[in-house]
Amino acid sequence: MDLYEVIIQELERTPGATIFIHKSPDGDALGSALTLAMALEARGKEAEIYCWDAVPYFYRFLPGWEKVKRVRQENEVFFYPLVVGLDSSDLGRLPFLEGRPPGKVVNIDHHPTNTRWGDLNLVEPGAAATGEIIFRLLEKWGLEITPEMATCLYTAIFTDTGGFRFSNTTEASLLYCHRLVKLGASPYEVATHVYESYSPGRMRLLGLALNTLSMAAEGGVAWIVVTREMMEATGTGPEDTEEFVNFPRSIRGVEVALLFRETESGVKVSFRSKGKVNVALIAASLGGGGHKAAAGCDMELPLEDAIKRVVPLVEETLACCTSSTFS
Amino acid sequence: MDLYEVIIQELERTPGATIFIHKSPDGDALGSALTLAMALEARGKEAEIYCWDAVPYFYRFLPGWEKVKRVRQENEVFFYPLVVGLDSSDLGRLPFLEGRPPGKVVNIDHHPTNTRWGDLNLVEPGAAATGEIIFRLLEKWGLEITPEMATCLYTAIFTDTGGFRFSNTTEASLLYCHRLVKLGASPYEVATHVYESYSPGRMRLLGLALNTLSMAAEGGVAWIVVTREMMEATGTGPEDTEEFVNFPRSIRGVEVALLFRETESGVKVSFRSKGKVNVALIAASLGGGGHKAAAGCDMELPLEDAIKRVVPLVEETLACCTSSTFS
Repeated sequence: MDLYEVIIQELERTPGATIFIHKSPDGDALGSALTLAMALEARGKEAEIYCWDAVPYFYRFLPGWEKVKRVRQENEVFFYPLVVGLDSSDLGRLPFLEGRPPGKVVNIDHHPTNTRWGDLNLVEPGAAATGEIIFRLLEKWGLEITPEMATCLYTAIFTDTGGFRFSNTTEASLLYCHRLVKLGASPYEVATHVYESYSPGRMRLLGLALNTLSMAAEGGVAWIVVTREMMEATGTGPEDTEEFVNFPRSIRGVEVALLFRETESGVKVSFRSKGKVNVALIAASLGGGGHKAAAGCDMELPLEDAIKRVVPLVEETLACCTSSTFS
Repeated sequence: MDLYEVIIQELERTPGATIFIHKSPDGDALGSALTLAMALEARGKEAEIYCWDAVPYFYRFLPGWEKVKRVRQENEVFFYPLVVGLDSSDLGRLPFLEGRPPGKVVNIDHHPTNTRWGDLNLVEPGAAATGEIIFRLLEKWGLEITPEMATCLYTAIFTDTGGFRFSNTTEASLLYCHRLVKLGASPYEVATHVYESYSPGRMRLLGLALNTLSMAAEGGVAWIVVTREMMEATGTGPEDTEEFVNFPRSIRGVEVALLFRETESGVKVSFRSKGKVNVALIAASLGGGGHKAAAGCDMELPLEDAIKRVVPLVEETLACCTSSTFS
């Protein structure tokens, strides 16, 4: 019996599941969780989805999004005998799961840095998105994929591959999405909701952030900054900065792009690499984590100090890289 | 014998073909032409590709791009007995083909407005890109699709669907691209070349332009401004503002987006509509032209006067529109 079959057995056995997704939920976490909840409901089971943060407004077209409950205190959570954590490399991403939950814990993820924090760990780093693993799970489960599930899973794969632009995009990602469109997902509607639903404030924030564009290492490193003042001036929040780091990333010659965002306690740093530098290692050395090409960390430092600490580290790492994975 | 077979017979019969692509060549025209030329060469035939304009720098990764010859005088063209025009709805897009070419003329295109200007007209409006038609042609021809061809055809489909974001994206587009990746195309390489080649100056210009974001008609109209001063300050030129109008367009609730760019003699206005408003009519009333969803005009007015003239016109037109093409 392979791991998929073991997990399907657990899902079939339980009267319901408590599904957790990571802080700052993205399209992959949300799409995967909503699909799994729909699948459980189709099998006559209960499902609750919890997240530390609210669903960003541009994902509020996903069928069932309003079922995602926001949790800030562990005792608010209802624990079914089965707990499923999705798209979360470690328990730091699931703060409410600290301390042992009462049920059996299933960890389904595609991050290579996943710490195998579950009782059952279905971790497939080759998958572009956790949504691809959920797709395979539903197929092995023999469940019908409804148009609503197809929209959720398409969004999961579409967003986690950056719209099929990142290096994790495989022929399998495109084949899954072809099949999901046949099953009822609309590429245009998903793209319109995800990428054409900027608020005016978010667009203004992007302008202010781009005004801070700085570069180092002869154009190999580029970063932008979002301060709390900017967010106040534009009436925006942290979720409005999603994707911002891709703007410095899209500059010709840039190998590593960074976004420094002021938080209440310091700075959140997002790293993007085009391939030469493994930014997961840099982020991990600062207490964070992620993928080779996309990582992040939180620093309890003033903005200027965080920049002074991170940029030289990235420059050094880039200087050490002589081989290229993309020419 | 279907039209594909007739065209394959012509391609097999001729010692070579003269391939034309439209002015302002895009990824679909270039990718389709380069693939067809490679196919002819694989069959031991000659092929020449001509275009009125130069290949944009971000398409200069396409295998064979340097074979595309720029032509401004008809007598520079070498005419084989077979002439193939690609991705061109009418002869206005192929100015060098005015007057009758000596060979048999094949017209392969996917624009619904195609005027059937060839002797053989393979026009399929259901195809997201001419590249999809070329893919089918090669399959029916029984030719091997090399990694170089796969890169060209993937680029054709990827760019003409706006990275799988436009409403023309179908399950077939995704299936073709899945197969093209299996045949050797790299989604990441293509996306990086096409969409991640901003100069630092262009990114700074984008920030300055977004700082000018203004809105009217309760959020239904949004515009940004690029002044000559901004271009001077960032070392950029008019070509760096391409795609800028899509930023105000991507704001939720915006029906019409505008870009006002200062020129030497006045202002160039770009219009984008999400469907309710036919911006070609507005642009035409100001001496310009275009399509329902994308149009433009030149105005010999100072920037502020142009804005004062255009915005109320757009507001009035929007107020008259009650139906929506996308809900």
